[in-house]
Amino acid sequence: MGTVILAVNAGSSSVKISVYTADQGQSPKQIAEAQVGGLTAPPATLKYELGGETVIDHREVSEEVKGQRDAFSLILDTLVKDHGLPRIKSKDDIGIICHRIVHGGDYTKPQLISESTYHHLEKLNDLAPLHNANSLGIVRLCVKEFPSSRNVACFDSQFHSTIPQHIRTYAINQEIARNNRLRKYGFHGISYSFITRATAEFLGKKPDETNIIAMHLGSGASVCAIKGGKSWDTSMGLTPLSGLPGATRSGSVDPSLVFHYASDVGRLSPNSTKELHISRAEEILNKEAGWKALTGTTNFGVIAAVGPSEDEDGNGADNNNNNNDDDDDEEKKSNDAAKRLAFDLFVDRICGFVGAYYVSLRGQVDALVFAGGIGEKSDRLRAAVVDQAGCLGFVIDRERNDARRLADGTAVVQEVGKEGVTPRVLVCRTDEQFEMARACAQDPAFW
Amino acid sequence: MGTVILAVNAGSSSVKISVYTADQGQSPKQIAEAQVGGLTAPPATLKYELGGETVIDHREVSEEVKGQRDAFSLILDTLVKDHGLPRIKSKDDIGIICHRIVHGGDYTKPQLISESTYHHLEKLNDLAPLHNANSLGIVRLCVKEFPSSRNVACFDSQFHSTIPQHIRTYAINQEIARNNRLRKYGFHGISYSFITRATAEFLGKKPDETNIIAMHLGSGASVCAIKGGKSWDTSMGLTPLSGLPGATRSGSVDPSLVFHYASDVGRLSPNSTKELHISRAEEILNKEAGWKALTGTTNFGVIAAVGPSEDEDGNGADNNNNNNDDDDDEEKKSNDAAKRLAFDLFVDRICGFVGAYYVSLRGQVDALVFAGGIGEKSDRLRAAVVDQAGCLGFVIDRERNDARRLADGTAVVQEVGKEGVTPRVLVCRTDEQFEMARACAQDPAFW
Repeated sequence: MGTVILAVNAGSSSVKISVYTADQGQSPKQIAEAQVGGLTAPPATLKYELGGETVIDHREVSEEVKGQRDAFSLILDTLVKDHGLPRIKSKDDIGIICHRIVHGGDYTKPQLISESTYHHLEKLNDLAPLHNANSLGIVRLCVKEFPSSRNVACFDSQFHSTIPQHIRTYAINQEIARNNRLRKYGFHGISYSFITRATAEFLGKKPDETNIIAMHLGSGASVCAIKGGKSWDTSMGLTPLSGLPGATRSGSVDPSLVFHYASDVGRLSPNSTKELHISRAEEILNKEAGWKALTGTTNFGVIAAVGPSEDEDGNGADNNNNNNDDDDDEEKKSNDAAKRLAFDLFVDRICGFVGAYYVSLRGQVDALVFAGGIGEKSDRLRAAVVDQAGCLGFVIDRERNDARRLADGTAVVQEVGKEGVTPRVLVCRTDEQFEMARACAQDPAFW
Repeated sequence: MGTVILAVNAGSSSVKISVYTADQGQSPKQIAEAQVGGLTAPPATLKYELGGETVIDHREVSEEVKGQRDAFSLILDTLVKDHGLPRIKSKDDIGIICHRIVHGGDYTKPQLISESTYHHLEKLNDLAPLHNANSLGIVRLCVKEFPSSRNVACFDSQFHSTIPQHIRTYAINQEIARNNRLRKYGFHGISYSFITRATAEFLGKKPDETNIIAMHLGSGASVCAIKGGKSWDTSMGLTPLSGLPGATRSGSVDPSLVFHYASDVGRLSPNSTKELHISRAEEILNKEAGWKALTGTTNFGVIAAVGPSEDEDGNGADNNNNNNDDDDDEEKKSNDAAKRLAFDLFVDRICGFVGAYYVSLRGQVDALVFAGGIGEKSDRLRAAVVDQAGCLGFVIDRERNDARRLADGTAVVQEVGKEGVTPRVLVCRTDEQFEMARACAQDPAFW
């Protein structure tokens, strides 16, 4: 029968739960999946799949479902009440609940959570209040109300604990750095762990002989240099803010920028609560920047539909072509120019990390691997990145890279590079929930 | 006879003046050079050379020489009073005074400074108060007290005005970016302009057909991708803070870091004056970070003397070898480990930009060019960077790269790469004062 494992992934506006069964040391088997989305843009909706079949399709939920805890409770209730899911008749049937926690500080592997270790997780919250707070409410609920389940924290930073000292260190006072725990941590590590194993398997290599440059490109986006199966460098830092821009995140900016952005940057944000002590500046750079700020949309698909600039010098071809009196047309052109700028900017920043990590890995790169929502879906982005990085030997295969062809496939890793060319260019369907459930199934400490 | 041109370079603790004669459109000829150093570590000292011969060698100056204006006046006085320099008998003999100004905002070329344009320069000060304030006092003095001279502002940012939009744009609200002038500007541009022309000449190419990755590595350090003789990207940003670490500068850090460094980061620094409105956080990252914070010294020569880590994984070999009871020895080991960390960190960050710019230039790179105090003097740093970037085709020639051999040479550009290998590896003796004087001599607007 196996033990029931829930993998819980709480984001800023959604909670996803995947349900697995597994025996100790075995690979988990998914039996159901549910998600509440739209928490920050009500009405929130519930989606529920059992054995790959949709049972509930984006049903609007009660207005009383306001936060991550409510969403978790609603999903649990849905699972328990569904007679089609006999493995969960009551909450006592749940063996392990693993929680994705963004910032894990110095933790190098998943941790069993008790009443006492919970307080340590609260302390970590200071390092990344914008990111960890989403999960903490659910963790607290589970520790109190699921006494017969083991709660496990899986950290997005733990995969990066292997980044060497000269790469993870910031050039600042090291005593303050130690006391305030200021260094590069890196995130998306649960995904990079999945990508590493899946890619090594696809290439027929041992993970510890596999070097890749992996990109997790979603509404949050990062790049990771993986050397011998271990994280060697990554674009995010102390928090997920640095590195690539994302849907609402600026990515790296001059550290002085915040002092020129507004005069009140040192103040607490009016949205700060007991669990969310952030300055207004952090809020602006994390929540009001990125391609939303550049284009008005957080949907990268809409941005990529306009495509890259034809003008290789990046001067925005549209600027030279303003002879049309039609205002609508002008507005469309201006919107298109903004999207083109966002697209070109994203490609430039991604390729910067690809070049940097190629050198950091001394050119010993087996594959460039695209993952995450954008990495999986945007053939135009993949083509633009691979073309720009072509001088490193990467070559796209236009036919293999076609989005429709890729969507039809079921393989976890698919090739989009040209036949016979190394380094390879791959797309990986990463699965953070599976990776968490797998980590729990593998670790004897949780059994 | 030619016109007398003074090129004034005011740093945070020094003022350098080079004296040239030039006719319009001709190359300036240096006749004298003077420097007051140690302004922030009194007693300040004066150095003065005439026709390449030292006249005054690090003479301690009066305690009343406190700031950049006093230093400027002292040097002018020295020049006027020296009978060996008949070209400057009074201040009326000075035709053009060109001032290095770090941040030039949107200026794309040098500007003639009048009483009225001076106020615009004051406004630019808001963008980089830590950097521009050093020069502004001297500019004001000259505008008022040298009525017969033309004062010209040469900007460190102007060379970078060609950086394309998708590279110079930060992924933030573009209306605020426009209003507050928030974008990548880039610095060390006077140096990069010199390096570009000198390198093109050395390679026997036209500047507009020359692509290089140039590194100005001094107490402030940056990298620049130069495409067709023009700046295409550079590592500094809105201010000189971002990009590489320097003697006292952190370089790029997670933009969130300042909010975790101290609780009082939003306050004005106690060192703020009317002309220096900076937050404590900017001060920490600009003045109390870098290799001074990592190692205790701002002298990179001392750091490089310890050399790179032998352990390619960067795990700090010394950490595993603590069996010695001698405290002095332990302290030396700890100091050596700190220096090795600073060295490895600097090489890692430099190579990151080399890789990024190699891709950004699509692999079309004629040469990697080292310049600035560290770039010219540290053969160990050059060897470490070129070795790590070897996968891009760069190869060092150990003999050519030897510091003693290079010090003996008089050429502006010297080869340190292996014979016959492209891309080339070069060292350039950059000369910012010459470049400023040349810009003034070339521009009919100043004659």
